[in-house]
Amino acid sequence: MGSNSFGRILTMTTFGESHGRALGAVLDGFPAGVPLSEEDLAPYLARRKPGGHYLSTARGESDRAEILSGVFEGRTTGTPIAMLVYNQDAHPGDYEALKDLYRPGHADYTYEAKYGIRDYRGGGRASGRETIGRVLCGAVCMQLLKELSVDVFAYTRSIGEIEADPARFERAAILESRTAMPDREADEKAVACIEALRAKGDSAGGVAECIMRGVPAGLGDPVFDKLDALLSHAVMSIGAVKAVEIGDGILAATAQGSSHNDAFAVSMGSVTKKSNHAGGILGGISDGSDIVLRAHIKPTPSIASGQQTVTKDKKEVSLHIKGRHDPVIVPRAVVVIECMCAFVLTDALLGGMPAQKDAVLAHYRR
Amino acid sequence: MGSNSFGRILTMTTFGESHGRALGAVLDGFPAGVPLSEEDLAPYLARRKPGGHYLSTARGESDRAEILSGVFEGRTTGTPIAMLVYNQDAHPGDYEALKDLYRPGHADYTYEAKYGIRDYRGGGRASGRETIGRVLCGAVCMQLLKELSVDVFAYTRSIGEIEADPARFERAAILESRTAMPDREADEKAVACIEALRAKGDSAGGVAECIMRGVPAGLGDPVFDKLDALLSHAVMSIGAVKAVEIGDGILAATAQGSSHNDAFAVSMGSVTKKSNHAGGILGGISDGSDIVLRAHIKPTPSIASGQQTVTKDKKEVSLHIKGRHDPVIVPRAVVVIECMCAFVLTDALLGGMPAQKDAVLAHYRR
Amino acid sequence: MGSNSFGRILTMTTFGESHGRALGAVLDGFPAGVPLSEEDLAPYLARRKPGGHYLSTARGESDRAEILSGVFEGRTTGTPIAMLVYNQDAHPGDYEALKDLYRPGHADYTYEAKYGIRDYRGGGRASGRETIGRVLCGAVCMQLLKELSVDVFAYTRSIGEIEADPARFERAAILESRTAMPDREADEKAVACIEALRAKGDSAGGVAECIMRGVPAGLGDPVFDKLDALLSHAVMSIGAVKAVEIGDGILAATAQGSSHNDAFAVSMGSVTKKSNHAGGILGGISDGSDIVLRAHIKPTPSIASGQQTVTKDKKEVSLHIKGRHDPVIVPRAVVVIECMCAFVLTDALLGGMPAQKDAVLAHYRR
Amino acid sequence: MGSNSFGRILTMTTFGESHGRALGAVLDGFPAGVPLSEEDLAPYLARRKPGGHYLSTARGESDRAEILSGVFEGRTTGTPIAMLVYNQDAHPGDYEALKDLYRPGHADYTYEAKYGIRDYRGGGRASGRETIGRVLCGAVCMQLLKELSVDVFAYTRSIGEIEADPARFERAAILESRTAMPDREADEKAVACIEALRAKGDSAGGVAECIMRGVPAGLGDPVFDKLDALLSHAVMSIGAVKAVEIGDGILAATAQGSSHNDAFAVSMGSVTKKSNHAGGILGGISDGSDIVLRAHIKPTPSIASGQQTVTKDKKEVSLHIKGRHDPVIVPRAVVVIECMCAFVLTDALLGGMPAQKDAVLAHYRR
Repeated sequence: MGSNSFGRILTMTTFGESHGRALGAVLDGFPAGVPLSEEDLAPYLARRKPGGHYLSTARGESDRAEILSGVFEGRTTGTPIAMLVYNQDAHPGDYEALKDLYRPGHADYTYEAKYGIRDYRGGGRASGRETIGRVLCGAVCMQLLKELSVDVFAYTRSIGEIEADPARFERAAILESRTAMPDREADEKAVACIEALRAKGDSAGGVAECIMRGVPAGLGDPVFDKLDALLSHAVMSIGAVKAVEIGDGILAATAQGSSHNDAFAVSMGSVTKKSNHAGGILGGISDGSDIVLRAHIKPTPSIASGQQTVTKDKKEVSLHIKGRHDPVIVPRAVVVIECMCAFVLTDALLGGMPAQKDAVLAHYRR
Repeated sequence: MGSNSFGRILTMTTFGESHGRALGAVLDGFPAGVPLSEEDLAPYLARRKPGGHYLSTARGESDRAEILSGVFEGRTTGTPIAMLVYNQDAHPGDYEALKDLYRPGHADYTYEAKYGIRDYRGGGRASGRETIGRVLCGAVCMQLLKELSVDVFAYTRSIGEIEADPARFERAAILESRTAMPDREADEKAVACIEALRAKGDSAGGVAECIMRGVPAGLGDPVFDKLDALLSHAVMSIGAVKAVEIGDGILAATAQGSSHNDAFAVSMGSVTKKSNHAGGILGGISDGSDIVLRAHIKPTPSIASGQQTVTKDKKEVSLHIKGRHDPVIVPRAVVVIECMCAFVLTDALLGGMPAQKDAVLAHYRR
Repeated sequence: MGSNSFGRILTMTTFGESHGRALGAVLDGFPAGVPLSEEDLAPYLARRKPGGHYLSTARGESDRAEILSGVFEGRTTGTPIAMLVYNQDAHPGDYEALKDLYRPGHADYTYEAKYGIRDYRGGGRASGRETIGRVLCGAVCMQLLKELSVDVFAYTRSIGEIEADPARFERAAILESRTAMPDREADEKAVACIEALRAKGDSAGGVAECIMRGVPAGLGDPVFDKLDALLSHAVMSIGAVKAVEIGDGILAATAQGSSHNDAFAVSMGSVTKKSNHAGGILGGISDGSDIVLRAHIKPTPSIASGQQTVTKDKKEVSLHIKGRHDPVIVPRAVVVIECMCAFVLTDALLGGMPAQKDAVLAHYRR
Repeated sequence: MGSNSFGRILTMTTFGESHGRALGAVLDGFPAGVPLSEEDLAPYLARRKPGGHYLSTARGESDRAEILSGVFEGRTTGTPIAMLVYNQDAHPGDYEALKDLYRPGHADYTYEAKYGIRDYRGGGRASGRETIGRVLCGAVCMQLLKELSVDVFAYTRSIGEIEADPARFERAAILESRTAMPDREADEKAVACIEALRAKGDSAGGVAECIMRGVPAGLGDPVFDKLDALLSHAVMSIGAVKAVEIGDGILAATAQGSSHNDAFAVSMGSVTKKSNHAGGILGGISDGSDIVLRAHIKPTPSIASGQQTVTKDKKEVSLHIKGRHDPVIVPRAVVVIECMCAFVLTDALLGGMPAQKDAVLAHYRR
């Protein structure tokens, strides 16, 4: 399977460059009979695009999804769902100055080392716009997850040193705040912090968190395709993510077994846990609790202040990157993380079905 | 591809349960002509097994690897290399008491939710012994990496609150200390800390770090199979790992672009970087610097002190786990992490070859 | 990997329905640096489309390929190449009468059994138009194969009982004749035969043959991914193909070892074979001789003469299919077979590189 | 996925050389709860081994399967099932004379072209003994298929020019005759024919047929993973198979649509077909009729009569192969074909489950 495909039973294959003709994805293996239209995709693209946040780049990405296949009379048919977004507001000329040098923190140098050639316009394939295909596929998955009452949502947990306070968590704020924070006070502070960075030509990172609620126990696989391993793969594959945590994550390393283990209990006839340090996954398989994932995101590498770098012909130069760049990409990355998690869960749901003989027999004896 | 297989060009398929007949792996896609014997595998198994550390479980795992196929006259032949270790010191009777209840922090409950059945002896497939197959395959990869002067080594960076001091880093200490720490002073402290925990029937977690040195620039793939995404997948799939960092990792989230970006420079005619916050990977592709990965490991879930849990028939009970259990598994996990990283790198090396037309033409026109 | 993807190192993912918005493919894993433009794709689409043959359906498919990604300044970049053809001359209304019944010889019934829903317009995904994506990808592969002097060409070997005579083989006739036969006399006869069938509302099948010349020895893999197994998979996956032969094929079953075995000899310092009953593949790996494959294709199932069938609500009805249908699809299938073979060879070429340690070392020590 | 693995949801990975330490397989993705013991595997190995037929090689392969993992208390657990057979009657010395030359019709030359090295003892990996792993996995699949009342059986349809007469078809004869023919009269003639060939140091080929009965409609996938394409891949990957037919196969190429199309009808409230030229598959998906596959097998390449070949250092030599060789391998290939077909069906059954949204919802709402 090529490196631009992801998934096992359900697979997404994405394509497209920042300033090429179009970006998109093919989603294969999605079940038939799920309602789907281009309107279902639009809100996800809107959250990904910078237009909704004055904090973000000024590039007016008026991305509009087209569904080319796999949907008939408003429902999926089981055949591959091809979706794309044509590039419209591309200014490839902006990048002429960058074509012969390697921007620090970007993939310019490494792509050239691998391929000997690169599309230098806006990072080419190694651009944040690559995530459009991921968002389209995740949005489709959400249509099925909703029918199964699985609730997947991500938000900005911190930007630089500014953290959202769990005590002020407000779900509506995620979609309404300028930073995708669930805490309106932290949002205010984060906006101020970012504006200050923008003024001095610098950038910041942050942390996004994704909660997956209502996932039945028993999803995921042992050994290499543990649910947490697949979620980490999915989220770490998003550009700029430098660390992934599940449940207590890094805190687990300094905890003790007696406090970290989640005691089992019985509640209303069902097995439950009294705490959730594990983050909803034991031995790679969901335990019915909330699945909790955090992604640590580096500062936007494109900054206006001066940097040192080298050219293709190995001359050292200094560089001031101009143009439209987010001082922080965390608010836009939130929907990408949410979509990747939704995809992994959907793939696991589809793959979870044949694990027991009795399920197989019941299916074919119906 | 099944969930017990991993890799793309090179694949490992592992099998076996803690107290079953044997555990092992089949490594497929490994190039022909590499020297390999059972003696090459032994040191890796020795580092994984508890026998070398008085800190570890008293189970005397005298694991001995057998190579069943894929090697002829001392060299690999390109055909699958099947390797296994027969279980010898298994005391399945020890686990009879645990067969009808779910141990906190273990996969007992989730396996049963998925499969409706489980091998309850020592965790069955969800045991630390599952990693034997990983270690065998990683050890084979090391044979090729050495010829390419790629140096992969992992060590214990911290146990509980005790951290190795980089200023006292000593490579030889990794294999000589009881905790796989590269700092002999920290090793002393960690040993004391663990003994105290053992005395009160508790356990601790810790952090392991892996350095991959000498990796050529240009390895890895864009988008979903970024080198960091594959490394995260590989390492997060090891039981007990709860977080993975690349390079600066979680520190990147609170850094600013101006300090986090690694400036490029020219040194002795080659492109280099003046710092390595990125951890050797840009846009998912190696940049020639050291690749740095950290894994955060939870405390051993099997503890002697009392815990609350439930039985299969949903009765709440209290549980005191007896038997041979490590109060900390980090020292033994180190070689598993090293082997998984070695595997991912080898797979990437083999997959990196056909990226450019000229490489393809040169290969076939020889 | 989803069922709409094919390949190992190189993968094609196709999408699209007969009367949907567009059909196309994403080709992933293709090396960087290969010249490619939409003009390179056009001749292959032209051979696939019915317009060039009066024998074929009257549907004026003016298919035009668009390349959406993966090409920069006229060369491939190593990133996925997305290509599509918008549907233009679709008359979905023609199919209204067929929406509630199952056409004999078509996939109407089986798709509904699998998915519970189907796009009934022109067969939906189970239409001959599905092969557009295959042809686009095969055409790209040809760009690389040409540089390696690998010559892949297919032709019509027989239509119904009319066979091309090897003694009259003329390569130019393949592209010039109306039936893609390499024998102009047989072409005349086949045309007459088909016109007679058309007049009585019937259809015929035939045999296509593909020759792969200049393939270096050593391509393919042992056991499951034998080159002949992959070629068979690729070609049998084309709708209407009912049998695949390699080399002597079915004749091998009645041959004796003494005559079937190809003797090895030395010619100009190289190992050669004195005959080629094996069809260029031994043990699944190419031996340097011509690779020879034949596909047996069933008669077009859409015929004007009356047939018996059933409706969705299980009533028996008789059916007369109207509309634009080829009485024989072999001439159009030829380019699809050629493209699938070209794809499998290219994938094998890319995958053949890391089989020997010395090749790996040489690559990284350059 | 490596070339020694096969399957999608269910995967088998095989390993082992003819005269190495052991051959075997790992079956991953098989559902939990299916009864399985080593005794279930024995009859399949017995049919594969030469001992039961005086017609076959004199090598007394007393193959005994061991199950190393994945079974607990007599039932599968959902974890990988590792199985192996140790080599016992190996006489590697027999092959010393062949180590520096390339046997016609064998993979000696091509393996060396690919890997630069080969295990020359009995063909190494490219030996008929490679099929042991396939048979072990197929035998496990049969355990599930039986519970679903899917009946898969293969037999010898012809040896050389001697064909079984369908009018004398007797199922019991398949296991009782010396040639696995279902026609005892043809069996007599075939035995005589083979003895004559053996006397003159020659060999013959033949045709095996596999019937898959009771397969529900709706199995298989569109486009690349059509059920017939996967079956062809599976069967063509068996050494010595040179052609594969589905249903009418090669006869379809000379048929007309009016006679080849299978009319649909309603029988006892269900959709049925009045004929089965298609061989049970339409558009790559099962239609509920018998699935019918034929494999054409070449004559055994190891023959006693003289042949011309070349040595490693490119000298032409003449060769007389001594030792234990079947003059015809069709009777032993029958069980391998049956097992590969059983595997593909089982994989399709497991993969067929999530195709419809309602099936997914029903599964998780249980």
